[in-house]
Amino acid sequence: MHKDKHNGKLSIIGTGPGSPEHITAAAQKAIHEADIIIGYKTYLEQIPALLEGKEVLSSTMMQEVERCRKALSLAEEGHKTALICGGDPGIYAMAGLVLELAAGSQNETDIEVVPGLAALNSCAARLGAPLMHDFAAISLSDLLTPWPLIEKRLSAAAEADFVIVLYNPRSKKRRQHLNRAQELIMAHRDPATPVGIVTAASRVNEKITITTLNKVTDAKVGMQSTVIIGNSKTFRWRDFLITPRGYADKYGLENHKQQEL
Amino acid sequence: MHKDKHNGKLSIIGTGPGSPEHITAAAQKAIHEADIIIGYKTYLEQIPALLEGKEVLSSTMMQEVERCRKALSLAEEGHKTALICGGDPGIYAMAGLVLELAAGSQNETDIEVVPGLAALNSCAARLGAPLMHDFAAISLSDLLTPWPLIEKRLSAAAEADFVIVLYNPRSKKRRQHLNRAQELIMAHRDPATPVGIVTAASRVNEKITITTLNKVTDAKVGMQSTVIIGNSKTFRWRDFLITPRGYADKYGLENHKQQEL
Repeated sequence: MHKDKHNGKLSIIGTGPGSPEHITAAAQKAIHEADIIIGYKTYLEQIPALLEGKEVLSSTMMQEVERCRKALSLAEEGHKTALICGGDPGIYAMAGLVLELAAGSQNETDIEVVPGLAALNSCAARLGAPLMHDFAAISLSDLLTPWPLIEKRLSAAAEADFVIVLYNPRSKKRRQHLNRAQELIMAHRDPATPVGIVTAASRVNEKITITTLNKVTDAKVGMQSTVIIGNSKTFRWRDFLITPRGYADKYGLENHKQQEL
Repeated sequence: MHKDKHNGKLSIIGTGPGSPEHITAAAQKAIHEADIIIGYKTYLEQIPALLEGKEVLSSTMMQEVERCRKALSLAEEGHKTALICGGDPGIYAMAGLVLELAAGSQNETDIEVVPGLAALNSCAARLGAPLMHDFAAISLSDLLTPWPLIEKRLSAAAEADFVIVLYNPRSKKRRQHLNRAQELIMAHRDPATPVGIVTAASRVNEKITITTLNKVTDAKVGMQSTVIIGNSKTFRWRDFLITPRGYADKYGLENHKQQEL
């Protein structure tokens, strides 16, 4: 079929944590309107119903640059193209790489980003309310970032009492990064600070662990885990982590910080 | 109608940026299953179709503590109660206050948090890919947080080259906070750093401004705005802000940083 170049469009779409009920209607609509779907195999397998009758190009994690280039060139040829990302395409996912490549080639295709729930949204929800105050998101992967910069950010976030969300906390090749992060954060924060670890949030294999900063390296933490480290006021109640916003001080509510597990 | 206490449940539900298509199916389902809906008027008015046939308790912004207490007591009485929040209930919204109050009264009700797209998700999407690397979210409201702590976090985030997301950047009572934030950040970051300002993301009155750090205080910024300040590598292309993840260094892609507007 001949495609009109001017009709091409690239939608970079986030499907959220991986269960169909956490996809937004806007993301479903963007997938529905596309005539070619491209994405990493794992994410495509989470949305079979949305792919019915579509041309689908599935790829593996090791081909990120190639995948984004392909998505751009399909859109440039006139296809309504959907690039599927897990989580939110704008948070440690493909929106940046696509736009970098498009800027480099001065690609004129219409490009849109359709947001999805990032790991920090879905994991925080499963833990209750850990992100109720200022927080920093830091990836422990040094594949694309110099490790000294990661260390600098860990120390800065810990010292300024941010809640800290760790992406890519541990992989087979990076066994020691989480230990080093723990050490840097504990230089500024109580070892008993509550920590939540969520793996595969809202999926059938979801696993939630609540522990403390001094024990975080003993917990089962993998590639798919997100680690949320409380600030100096975060407390645990039931299986929730709660970071107070400050209402207790302002309105004289009883203060319920209970650091002991 | 007599309610069985053991059937009560409180769902704290995020409706995202305020257009119905950005609500997840899970959030819609949780609203559908509730028999009482409670929430701030503005957020309820954004989802009329979901409220049909429901008992609805609408309130105003100044009654946050009362609203959360009411939601908890309704659930305790046996109601399936939905507390509606704009954005993500877990990010500067009501999940924390509800859980603080529940912890204080040792409330035994079943409580769940249903995540939604936070302002940082939806605003970042409208700007392309500003949050593609480590970032810090900081609220400039000192209603519940001492201002010196906010200053400390601004300086720490700027020095460690985090992308910075400012919530509550300016209100009628807080005209100078954004100016002070600009000053603190500019102590560590190029005045020409790209900045995106998104107001009412994805709603009919949406407004997007792209500017630079040295000019951010000249822009129209209000209560409903989110301000995203790039890191040292963020560049502008078309109307996008792009924070490179690091692929260019790793894979020898051309580097496209263009700080001049």
